[in-house]
Amino acid sequence: MAEKEAVQSDQQTLGDGDIEDLCVAVSDFAGLSDNELQFSRGDKIEVLQKTSEHWWWSRLNGHFGYVPTNHVVSFSDSSFKQISWQDCDYFENYGTLKLHLEMLSDKPRTEAYKKAFEVYCRHTKDKVVLDIGCGTGILSMFAATVGQAAKVYAVEASDIAHYTKSLVDKNGLGEQITVIEGEMENIVLPEKVDLIISEWMGTMLLFEFMIETVILGRDKCLKEDGVIWPSEAQLYLAPCSAQSVYQAKVKAWDNVYGYDFSSLREEAVKEFFYKPIYNHNLSDEDCLAEETCILQLNMKHVQIQDLEKIDKDFSFLVKKSGPLHGFCSWFSVGFSHPDSDSPMVVLSTGPKHSQTHWHQHLFMLDEPLSVAPDNEVTGRITLIRNTEWRRHLTVIIQGQVLKSVNKERIQSFHKVFPLWMDQVLKDEYIKPKD
Amino acid sequence: MAEKEAVQSDQQTLGDGDIEDLCVAVSDFAGLSDNELQFSRGDKIEVLQKTSEHWWWSRLNGHFGYVPTNHVVSFSDSSFKQISWQDCDYFENYGTLKLHLEMLSDKPRTEAYKKAFEVYCRHTKDKVVLDIGCGTGILSMFAATVGQAAKVYAVEASDIAHYTKSLVDKNGLGEQITVIEGEMENIVLPEKVDLIISEWMGTMLLFEFMIETVILGRDKCLKEDGVIWPSEAQLYLAPCSAQSVYQAKVKAWDNVYGYDFSSLREEAVKEFFYKPIYNHNLSDEDCLAEETCILQLNMKHVQIQDLEKIDKDFSFLVKKSGPLHGFCSWFSVGFSHPDSDSPMVVLSTGPKHSQTHWHQHLFMLDEPLSVAPDNEVTGRITLIRNTEWRRHLTVIIQGQVLKSVNKERIQSFHKVFPLWMDQVLKDEYIKPKD
Repeated sequence: MAEKEAVQSDQQTLGDGDIEDLCVAVSDFAGLSDNELQFSRGDKIEVLQKTSEHWWWSRLNGHFGYVPTNHVVSFSDSSFKQISWQDCDYFENYGTLKLHLEMLSDKPRTEAYKKAFEVYCRHTKDKVVLDIGCGTGILSMFAATVGQAAKVYAVEASDIAHYTKSLVDKNGLGEQITVIEGEMENIVLPEKVDLIISEWMGTMLLFEFMIETVILGRDKCLKEDGVIWPSEAQLYLAPCSAQSVYQAKVKAWDNVYGYDFSSLREEAVKEFFYKPIYNHNLSDEDCLAEETCILQLNMKHVQIQDLEKIDKDFSFLVKKSGPLHGFCSWFSVGFSHPDSDSPMVVLSTGPKHSQTHWHQHLFMLDEPLSVAPDNEVTGRITLIRNTEWRRHLTVIIQGQVLKSVNKERIQSFHKVFPLWMDQVLKDEYIKPKD
Repeated sequence: MAEKEAVQSDQQTLGDGDIEDLCVAVSDFAGLSDNELQFSRGDKIEVLQKTSEHWWWSRLNGHFGYVPTNHVVSFSDSSFKQISWQDCDYFENYGTLKLHLEMLSDKPRTEAYKKAFEVYCRHTKDKVVLDIGCGTGILSMFAATVGQAAKVYAVEASDIAHYTKSLVDKNGLGEQITVIEGEMENIVLPEKVDLIISEWMGTMLLFEFMIETVILGRDKCLKEDGVIWPSEAQLYLAPCSAQSVYQAKVKAWDNVYGYDFSSLREEAVKEFFYKPIYNHNLSDEDCLAEETCILQLNMKHVQIQDLEKIDKDFSFLVKKSGPLHGFCSWFSVGFSHPDSDSPMVVLSTGPKHSQTHWHQHLFMLDEPLSVAPDNEVTGRITLIRNTEWRRHLTVIIQGQVLKSVNKERIQSFHKVFPLWMDQVLKDEYIKPKD
């Protein structure tokens, strides 16, 4: 039988179904016998079994042992940091090399930042830069060497920061770059900065809501005439075919080695299409209409409260016939400088550009709809930030296919997609309107 | 930043780092207000927060609410089934369609069973068959139609069994195939069977240790002259190069957009090569010597206790020079019938055959070793079943590279690979011998 699942479980993951029992050490403990864990204040320890009131069977860095419960605070204690941000999981992800390697290996992503420093170098020279969520420090290094910044503050909350300092030193940039280990929210810089750089974008642009940290950093640290990179962001939507996905997940059940397994189709739709397919590679030919922009952010001015609920009507003119399986989404960001006439540096994650580690996000309807050229697909997309799990959101897509001639409604659709945790929604979002 | 991790967390996973807080309902509960969960006896409920002594904040099938603690038993209660088998996680995996779709889509795997029924049809006709862990029932259907068995008992412990019965009926096989929902260990059949079929193989052949259930089923239900499919199994090992893996995970840090990140190499080795790489696709050219069989099982006679610890000395004659990055492992199984002269039907998951969903398993050494033709790579591989997590095991590979002429030792290696959970091992396994 399959063992692939276990591979994935070997990775620290963020999101649905991964509420582990974790505690944080509030004081050092030496471990008095072989079956007691040794740990230091601040260690995050996995609780495997709450064996007794006084001792929990736990794991830390691959070692197993008991921890005395009076030395730790459980994450579920209300006294502890709100679990709704899942910061422990979140920063634990970014504390491993795996994600950083993936991001660094994403050349369109990383080189867009580098190019911004190349194009606007004249304006970043000798300036002070803040890198929010610096990771391994690559963007700070671009700022220091390509951008010739005088000073870079590189802030990182995950454990990767332990390494960042030594990487900066090894590359002879210790004078220019100051690595600060901590959360942006708690940090006070000795000065305001000319430029903020950050790579905060996630699925549907907003997932993980790191943008909130960037906005907080901006309001706290950016000079009034300062610049923020990316300077703007756009989120796009397009109706599309996804025949191979539909074939592989739904139609496959119609004929299984000659047997009829089609009674599993409904369950398959539920299981495979309940959430968006996050790593879809949309081919341009599968777009049934030109994409439309459903969200435009000006990073200098966007406010946190703007992101709680986003509503956008759409209207697509179908350009080719085909089964409409769902909608695809992607985003782009732009880097500009007010003192420069250079054309904007753009990083697009769309199907017409080189594939990035974000891919495209595919929202599959339960059943494909037939559309023909000049049909209109009109409706509304709503993004609702999860009120409980603050790094998550829910996407609602609803609308209809209209005939080209008399605008008569042929078919309609309405679907709610959680990314990733479910949330309780008002009836108006759950129930399709007539 | 990356969002890929979250995709994986959306899947039910088995193994390391996935000890969720789960409880099982011991009685129905109607839910008295909007914020109370409604559930039925037997439901497995995710506990998100142990809010108070009397109420836990929980999730079931996407709904959130409080559950009264006197209606449930927590998995960590010692009164509950031993967590060490993780049967809840295990069967939950196999209760989703995803894994079954993956297994069904693996043609070499599925068609090997079909072919066995084709080749030995004369001997299975009108016989009684037991299918252990039948899943969607595909092997039972082969038994009934291709193998023309009189009767098939199809046993399945995961929730997929809900569907199996209706699939069997839909395909007109309800007379022949009896689907039994439950664990093999607890089931009493009305008769002994002529043939047992099962697809129990995992990473390193044994991972998940479903083989134990098959052995128990055999001892309980198989006639003395009965047949078991697969009839035998072999596990293979070969020294190999894995340049692209080493480049992508370790050497990549030497030059990151012109910066020197090489101080992360050591950490990368620890993170990426600590456990085997489970889904490696070994090309035959990367094998540095002929594979050797490190384990041979006769399924009619193997005993559970044979699998607690397996030791095998190996000696490879290197056939080409290259960096020895590690060792690859794969398995094959054979289907035979004592009353038939037909050549054995073989399913091999090795690099010379079509790729299966098992791929090959790659055990990376920390540093590559140089080997040249006629060098010998000798040593020992040990498989130790995890004494605590009974579905897991640890693999220890140790040995040396010897010169061809005088057998002088050039280099040595010793590494412990947990699959997946760590376990405490005796010193003799952890410490390399001189």
